[in-house]
Amino acid sequence: LSSGMFVHVRRMLQQLPPEDIALLLESCPHAERKNIWQLTDSEQQGEILEELNEDARDSILALMDTENLVAATEGMDTDDLAYVLSGLNDSAYQEVLAQMDAQDRHRLEQALGYPEDTAGSVMNTDTITLRPDVTIDVVLRYLRLKGELPEATDALYVVNKHDKLIGEVALATLLTVDTASTVMDVMDNTRKSIPVAMAEIEVAKIFERRDLISAPVVDQNDRLLGRITIDDVVDIIREDADHKMMGMAGMDDDEDTFAPILKSTKRRTIWLTVNLGAALLASSVSNMFEATLSEIATLAVLMTIVPSMGGIAGNQTLALVIRGMAVGHIGDSNARTLIMKEAAIGLLNGLIWALLVAVAVVIWKGDVNIGYVIAGAMFINLSVAGLAGVCIPLIMNKLKIDPALAGGMALTTVTDVVGLFSFLGMATIFLRA
Amino acid sequence: LSSGMFVHVRRMLQQLPPEDIALLLESCPHAERKNIWQLTDSEQQGEILEELNEDARDSILALMDTENLVAATEGMDTDDLAYVLSGLNDSAYQEVLAQMDAQDRHRLEQALGYPEDTAGSVMNTDTITLRPDVTIDVVLRYLRLKGELPEATDALYVVNKHDKLIGEVALATLLTVDTASTVMDVMDNTRKSIPVAMAEIEVAKIFERRDLISAPVVDQNDRLLGRITIDDVVDIIREDADHKMMGMAGMDDDEDTFAPILKSTKRRTIWLTVNLGAALLASSVSNMFEATLSEIATLAVLMTIVPSMGGIAGNQTLALVIRGMAVGHIGDSNARTLIMKEAAIGLLNGLIWALLVAVAVVIWKGDVNIGYVIAGAMFINLSVAGLAGVCIPLIMNKLKIDPALAGGMALTTVTDVVGLFSFLGMATIFLRA
Repeated sequence: LSSGMFVHVRRMLQQLPPEDIALLLESCPHAERKNIWQLTDSEQQGEILEELNEDARDSILALMDTENLVAATEGMDTDDLAYVLSGLNDSAYQEVLAQMDAQDRHRLEQALGYPEDTAGSVMNTDTITLRPDVTIDVVLRYLRLKGELPEATDALYVVNKHDKLIGEVALATLLTVDTASTVMDVMDNTRKSIPVAMAEIEVAKIFERRDLISAPVVDQNDRLLGRITIDDVVDIIREDADHKMMGMAGMDDDEDTFAPILKSTKRRTIWLTVNLGAALLASSVSNMFEATLSEIATLAVLMTIVPSMGGIAGNQTLALVIRGMAVGHIGDSNARTLIMKEAAIGLLNGLIWALLVAVAVVIWKGDVNIGYVIAGAMFINLSVAGLAGVCIPLIMNKLKIDPALAGGMALTTVTDVVGLFSFLGMATIFLRA
Repeated sequence: LSSGMFVHVRRMLQQLPPEDIALLLESCPHAERKNIWQLTDSEQQGEILEELNEDARDSILALMDTENLVAATEGMDTDDLAYVLSGLNDSAYQEVLAQMDAQDRHRLEQALGYPEDTAGSVMNTDTITLRPDVTIDVVLRYLRLKGELPEATDALYVVNKHDKLIGEVALATLLTVDTASTVMDVMDNTRKSIPVAMAEIEVAKIFERRDLISAPVVDQNDRLLGRITIDDVVDIIREDADHKMMGMAGMDDDEDTFAPILKSTKRRTIWLTVNLGAALLASSVSNMFEATLSEIATLAVLMTIVPSMGGIAGNQTLALVIRGMAVGHIGDSNARTLIMKEAAIGLLNGLIWALLVAVAVVIWKGDVNIGYVIAGAMFINLSVAGLAGVCIPLIMNKLKIDPALAGGMALTTVTDVVGLFSFLGMATIFLRA
């Protein structure tokens, strides 16, 4: 960058909001990130760090010294602070902690005390609480004295003298009710609070279903601990969606689009290794029928069709079941109905595609017997695929394995093995001279 | 259901919020939906209909007569009304329209005038507007007189006498500033408004990035038309995520978990048909080498390994690129960097897995020459897979084809064809006697 450009870029960056600079950094190869980071306004650096994904955050943290980091994180929301600092190694983390002021350190240690991916780890502690017996008039005067409300505040929480949550008052309510009434009179005590240990993905479901903007978080004794706001929930939903989509391809959802080549290659190894195992397993099935294959070469030409169709049919069912489990449509009580339905679809699909493929193959190869064999194998494999597509995710769920991650690979292995075994097996029985 | 049960279930249903009844209906096979629907409170039926997914909505609409429907939809938000009625066929729709009151009909026709999936189609028209020159004190008295604010209102909009949007005042601001100041003094005029023609997916990105709760929608002349609220945005994000996940398996995201068997089977046909085409294409590649396959049966045993590894490696890149395009990391300016990076990973992966697979195959089959051939094919296919994984979605995007939908199938076809061709081709050249 020439010095004229330098000034120009710095000015441009200063006009961008932190979330846009974060996106810009994520969209750059690693080498360029350093240049851009150095041009950002130090006052914005904290907010930029909050918005970065994990990989990009780590690459930026590596550029900062402890002093910079302490300055950047001053006054950050607890949940954001915990996110940023979780990118540091232990010694750097201790150094930052030592230089933080006592109050921030205390809040941080508390936030880090909640297990990852629970309500506690995403909540903020900046709630405004009211007592039930004061009048709205008093509340209004108190707020005007305070002068500012925490971000995304849409309701104030009502607690009794033991800090127990007993209701909430929406800002809209404060603006519309008679100012002489008490908090008790106008508060809403029908809304449910979020237990601090609830999984964040469950929290997101509640927000989605109830159209919430914020919700109070309580401990086992209903004492108010903090609140969760919709912006954090939107992040949870987006991350979950990314996790599912990337997970289906065996990728980590934290994977940086512009991660260095060696790091990326290493990360992709696991899935390729698992697949090599699956591919060798399928090959060993074909290997059992080597004698048949050497006699009838046409079988080798056709043997990939049945596994391929089974893989697609099974994955369709799998996607439906994973989605159904995610939105909460599928429980123990209707699992049997679903299995029956998908099994029926599998049988029907099996009939249809057995017929179609057999006709195509007979026309192509002019051999009716191969038509019978491929039809039989197709019917068996599509029926199995339907059943496997619904049973694999249900079983994995019971075993606490994420079906979005491992389901596709397990399913494809089943349909490959069953497809090859039924096609080559029947060919061996019926076609060998 | 016995009559005792009947009363019990009805009582239970009456205690559930509409969104939970909607979930319950979606989780039921079609046959049971009718029974449950008949037990719901008619006052709740409108709200339940809003919350149902398309398939479930249609199955319920089929149970209702025009009169019921008009009653249920009375006073519904415009965007919800448009959603519910879009499930009717033309004649039923005209009947409902004829029985609606004039104002509702007008609002509805306006809402339906905006193209689907744009800001206009998801906005509500229930905004509260202020003039810049009034004092906060007047605003507060006006709101208290009004007595209620529309749902999810977090800000009031400031318009000039031509209805042009000039700023907004957050509820939190109304509660904290000096009541003698004017709207002009305290309003925020830095926040951007949403153009009515913006794609809803772009709207969602803006909400996510700026942590918005609601945003004003304007026409080309900056005149205020309505507002979009975060609950609708959360639905957009969820639908988009569902669409991506289901789309990758060739499923429609509106597919009902408990859709009737025939309907489901029919819907899955397209993808299976496309795949049959792809599978036959791959077979026709093998067919070119039938002579080689009949000479060396081991090739048939091993020939599925190279395409399978290529499919996985390519899909990893594909998932990364689709995610990157969705969050806005990838544009024209850095596409080249990304292609170079993924090509490099492809070459590196090619080297690593060529070596590993060759060693495994030589040990298994005891034939060094087959090892050379499979190593060469693996290197070629993984290099091509990396390139295809990044180029296919970029090209599809230019052609306005959704890569989340068609990318996987296109990619697998490429890696199957290249994998088979390179493996069997090299075997023909180097291994045939």
